[in-house]
Amino acid sequence: MSKYYIGIDLGGTFIKGGIVNENGEILVSDKVPTEVEKGDKGVAANIAGLASDLMARLGITTKDVEGLGIGSPGMIDSAQGNVVYANNLGWENFKICDELSRLLGGITVKIGNDANVAALGEVKFGAARNYNSVVMITLGTGVGGGVVIDGTMIEGNKGAGAELGHIVIVYGGEQCSCGRKGCFEAYSSATALIRDTRRAMEAHPDSKMWEVGSLDAVNGKTVFDYAPVDVYAKEVLDNYIKYLACGLVNYANVFRPEAILLGGGVCAQGDNLIKPLQKIFDSEIYAGDKGPKVPILVAELENSAGLLGAAALLM
Amino acid sequence: MSKYYIGIDLGGTFIKGGIVNENGEILVSDKVPTEVEKGDKGVAANIAGLASDLMARLGITTKDVEGLGIGSPGMIDSAQGNVVYANNLGWENFKICDELSRLLGGITVKIGNDANVAALGEVKFGAARNYNSVVMITLGTGVGGGVVIDGTMIEGNKGAGAELGHIVIVYGGEQCSCGRKGCFEAYSSATALIRDTRRAMEAHPDSKMWEVGSLDAVNGKTVFDYAPVDVYAKEVLDNYIKYLACGLVNYANVFRPEAILLGGGVCAQGDNLIKPLQKIFDSEIYAGDKGPKVPILVAELENSAGLLGAAALLM
Repeated sequence: MSKYYIGIDLGGTFIKGGIVNENGEILVSDKVPTEVEKGDKGVAANIAGLASDLMARLGITTKDVEGLGIGSPGMIDSAQGNVVYANNLGWENFKICDELSRLLGGITVKIGNDANVAALGEVKFGAARNYNSVVMITLGTGVGGGVVIDGTMIEGNKGAGAELGHIVIVYGGEQCSCGRKGCFEAYSSATALIRDTRRAMEAHPDSKMWEVGSLDAVNGKTVFDYAPVDVYAKEVLDNYIKYLACGLVNYANVFRPEAILLGGGVCAQGDNLIKPLQKIFDSEIYAGDKGPKVPILVAELENSAGLLGAAALLM
Repeated sequence: MSKYYIGIDLGGTFIKGGIVNENGEILVSDKVPTEVEKGDKGVAANIAGLASDLMARLGITTKDVEGLGIGSPGMIDSAQGNVVYANNLGWENFKICDELSRLLGGITVKIGNDANVAALGEVKFGAARNYNSVVMITLGTGVGGGVVIDGTMIEGNKGAGAELGHIVIVYGGEQCSCGRKGCFEAYSSATALIRDTRRAMEAHPDSKMWEVGSLDAVNGKTVFDYAPVDVYAKEVLDNYIKYLACGLVNYANVFRPEAILLGGGVCAQGDNLIKPLQKIFDSEIYAGDKGPKVPILVAELENSAGLLGAAALLM
């Protein structure tokens, strides 16, 4: 008989939920508005409402599920089931697992940080399903990620670790959102790529990249599109890949994972990104060929990673 | 009744060994030459000989011990009990645990990388004994270290991880022994501190540091001795501490350990190092006061850390 796991991907705007079986198949899913303005208990009630609705649609009850897992933004103390601090929800020290268990007939409820949980989803059911130890890096507005070692997330004391965008790789370099200068995020996020693309265009009025129309029209694809035909685009892209490789090698030297997993929109470029990246990475990793190879893979679960990873918290 | 654990600290010149009880008390200890020239099995025989001698002195036999643990240089696959690669022993793929178990009546034998094992020793019996999750950084000729999370070492695939000196913090910076430029080791090792001290003296013939006599007389203490009276010494020291803080904050953001432990000769400076270091560290760590504080402690087991950590592999 199939087992049922409820996975919840909690965001500032929407709560996505689904019921998943042990093979990572999503049997039913839906989303509802988070309604942050209702406060922590109000949002918990919305989560419980969504979970109940999903169970009803499958014709099951809380007695039939193994439990509910949540991926949440913010600093999460998973051992205590506590959201220590979540800026975009406006929460501090909310014991969400106790509250949800109370609302849902005493079922088991577990929680993890959303980036860590997404990494867990990819390790259990996605691109890294053949590996137990993986570092996942997501290149988005910022740089986030998660580390799974032997199937367990590295969360840090009170969930304050795994801030993978926030290692300085260029001492005194570009200003980072965290207050330091020169963080990995300040060079490898999509935001940083767009910043550097615009700078190159401003410095070079003859760049073919101006064909996009204006600086406002620049996105993370621009340099990839123009690199084959524009030396300035090529230079921005080459630099971006060098810094990205630098950060990934740092993580490889610390964790020597079985694989590194990249997520985020930039990864849609596939081999145009991964091939040159892997080449630099292989030439710089500690002990080179004497240690085990670390393949760089592209995450594949996309929007389902959070939901599946949340369900995987109970597996 | 007391339990007995044999700890072995394997080095390129000497094998140090001891028998330890469950409280980390060293009941008997000694050292013998490694004799690398005898080859892997010859060195294993020397280890077995030392272990047998120590047991005889205590009046116990292999039946009375819980097992033997080894801290070894090189890349160690602890799950396989295999020295994958150890440059200064000249070994490749030596299944030392099987060999030692065979020589010692079938006892349990475990192995870990020496830096990781020393960190485990400090967590079990040393300065970090009140903590379960610790990053230890040793500032010596190079920068090494170990990571213990919830009492377990982070070793990486085939033991190739935890190369903590080899994260780039200054992209394109000082040449590192690993081939990359700008590694933490190239700024925070005692070697780097001495290099920068000499550079400052060469640039400033009026520096009071010349009182040491010559560039050859410079050591890791020089800038600490002269910082109160020489602006050039002060500048070198301030920079050293800034880069050291940078690397430690990187590790704090990744692991958010309960404590960071510093080892190596530079730490003999105590508060002259730790106080200014902790101040910069606290101001730069991710999420500042919102996350749990990370105290920087000085390792205290010194030469016993390896032996005690090796014994702790069995606890």
